[in-house]
Amino acid sequence: MATEGLDMRTAVGWAARDAGGHLSPYTYNLRKTGPEDVLVKVLYCGICHTDIHQARNHLGMSKYPMVPGHEVVGEVEEVGTEVTKYRAGDVVGIGLIVGCCRQCHPCKSNNEQYCNKKIWSYNDVYTDGKPTHGGFSSAMVVDQKFVVKIPPGLAPEQAAPLLCAGVTVYSPLKRFGLTSSGLRVRGAILGLGGVGHMGVMIAKAMGHHVTVISSSDRKRGEAMDHLGADAYLVSSDAAAMAAAADTLDYIIDTVPVHHALEPYISLLRLDGKLLIMGVIGQPMSFVSPMLMLGRKSIGGSFVGSVEETEETLAFFEAKGVTSQIEVVKMGYLNEALERLERNDVRYRFIVDVAGSNLDHTLSSETA
Amino acid sequence: MATEGLDMRTAVGWAARDAGGHLSPYTYNLRKTGPEDVLVKVLYCGICHTDIHQARNHLGMSKYPMVPGHEVVGEVEEVGTEVTKYRAGDVVGIGLIVGCCRQCHPCKSNNEQYCNKKIWSYNDVYTDGKPTHGGFSSAMVVDQKFVVKIPPGLAPEQAAPLLCAGVTVYSPLKRFGLTSSGLRVRGAILGLGGVGHMGVMIAKAMGHHVTVISSSDRKRGEAMDHLGADAYLVSSDAAAMAAAADTLDYIIDTVPVHHALEPYISLLRLDGKLLIMGVIGQPMSFVSPMLMLGRKSIGGSFVGSVEETEETLAFFEAKGVTSQIEVVKMGYLNEALERLERNDVRYRFIVDVAGSNLDHTLSSETA
Repeated sequence: MATEGLDMRTAVGWAARDAGGHLSPYTYNLRKTGPEDVLVKVLYCGICHTDIHQARNHLGMSKYPMVPGHEVVGEVEEVGTEVTKYRAGDVVGIGLIVGCCRQCHPCKSNNEQYCNKKIWSYNDVYTDGKPTHGGFSSAMVVDQKFVVKIPPGLAPEQAAPLLCAGVTVYSPLKRFGLTSSGLRVRGAILGLGGVGHMGVMIAKAMGHHVTVISSSDRKRGEAMDHLGADAYLVSSDAAAMAAAADTLDYIIDTVPVHHALEPYISLLRLDGKLLIMGVIGQPMSFVSPMLMLGRKSIGGSFVGSVEETEETLAFFEAKGVTSQIEVVKMGYLNEALERLERNDVRYRFIVDVAGSNLDHTLSSETA
Repeated sequence: MATEGLDMRTAVGWAARDAGGHLSPYTYNLRKTGPEDVLVKVLYCGICHTDIHQARNHLGMSKYPMVPGHEVVGEVEEVGTEVTKYRAGDVVGIGLIVGCCRQCHPCKSNNEQYCNKKIWSYNDVYTDGKPTHGGFSSAMVVDQKFVVKIPPGLAPEQAAPLLCAGVTVYSPLKRFGLTSSGLRVRGAILGLGGVGHMGVMIAKAMGHHVTVISSSDRKRGEAMDHLGADAYLVSSDAAAMAAAADTLDYIIDTVPVHHALEPYISLLRLDGKLLIMGVIGQPMSFVSPMLMLGRKSIGGSFVGSVEETEETLAFFEAKGVTSQIEVVKMGYLNEALERLERNDVRYRFIVDVAGSNLDHTLSSETA
């Protein structure tokens, strides 16, 4: 397969060079395809809010140059001698994690995303001591354990957002016992961004009665008409919130900034669960009787395992669910990040990596 | 059966008259035994921390005179025409709840303790418009739905603390999926009071590996030697806490006052659950990554259902577990409440109601 004039061991990605977070072309060497490795030519890569945090060093752990991107769909170019699951030409996906210790309790129970020694797809160091780089790049070399097959019924650009946003919602619904089908399960999605829109679609595909909760009335039409939500609740409407008290089995809380939890705990009925998806460093609070009088709980969850990612892909294929995405070229990456930051996208940017001229400014940037 | 010289429709209880919370004899009328009612001569009644809160109006909802007591074991004296479950002479128990709406989702799913219209055993108003009074009394009339049979293998005074403290621990362990048996389940009990000591015994009887977490080393011997805990952890010992990080499947948090949660969330491993048992009005806090990176959750629970109370009693009978109690007479009630408040009891006071002279100061108090 052609590699667009690049040597297969060299990749051209778009990297941030400092906490300004501006991305520009960057050439780097890929590791040799080891026995368990898969060399993947990137086709599409979704843009997640985490990419902004990392590129701009919001978490204080960024190392540069950094090629972000962790919703990667690509085509297998080459496989290592021990690779049996994949062969050249397969369409595959790579998510947030590319390594783990394989010894700990999470690893042994197929929950490798909770391994304390997990290796992130980018902004991390691989076992060879070299930096990991993500999917805003022509190619990646990844251990087969962290590669998933994209089912034939899913378009590659449709599969991309499932590899992080999709499984991020699917996994907790499964793990917290909320995947029973039917309208008797009443769920809500708080916040309608990339993860939130996935939440609505997955919950609807499970047959749940789905309420979208938002701070304003602005997204009512989108939620009800485009995404098929059953109800829309404005969190500042005290009367509507009071009327909805004690009705929900779960709330997937995708709000990525500090917020009061009690208005939402009030909406839960017996055994209801508030599942927090946003990494929020400021303490969030509750009073214990609100949990006790209803046997409610507050839980958190972090993406999903490789196994759950495969389940998410199979679920979307089986249900024929289509995510709402905006496909852009690499040249639009910085603008896309800025639009994502002001929540100006319905609902996920997907970068058409293979269809972009990756090195169009390469000579000047690497000069 | 003799009723100690009292007319069967009159009871002598010990009541608080004001927020001072001092209890003294008080004579009142019981309602006529209705078709679904059971008239119970009280044998024993446990003393729970809630009794102090209610007697002293700590929750701001107390009405006087108030006869507390909600871990009641007694003997059936008389049953209504529609009562089929019980007959005179049966030893039965009554807990925190004596009424519910029977129509709502919690009621219909046998979770009547979460009914918004539940009626408390005392300091509440019954369907006849009259105040409810608890077990520090010669007798109670209770709807058969809220009466449980005490299994023959349990001594009445041993059964009493199971009706609140016991089921308060048993119910969340069951509902949050933590009743698998065996040492591979690693639980901890935070705080070694009435509920905490029940927690250790129940968790041990389930076969779990049980750690007692306490603020000082003072209770190590009791926990390890008397209650059979497997480990003892002093929460102020930073090295020991760090060594125990990421090891526990659950913590039953019985601390009834505000405290930091994060040191304990750190102790939980993947899917670990912090189950809060204390009614704490001050906001408690956490940061979301601590829950997310480990799929942990914080849950609350409130006593248990009638059905779960029966299960708890059967579990104690089957396992031959004995609670550690101190049996006292009614005349010692005020002193017992004071000792309980300073945590000076191992581990539950049980009042020998039937063996006490209930009206020994009656004439002066009702004059």
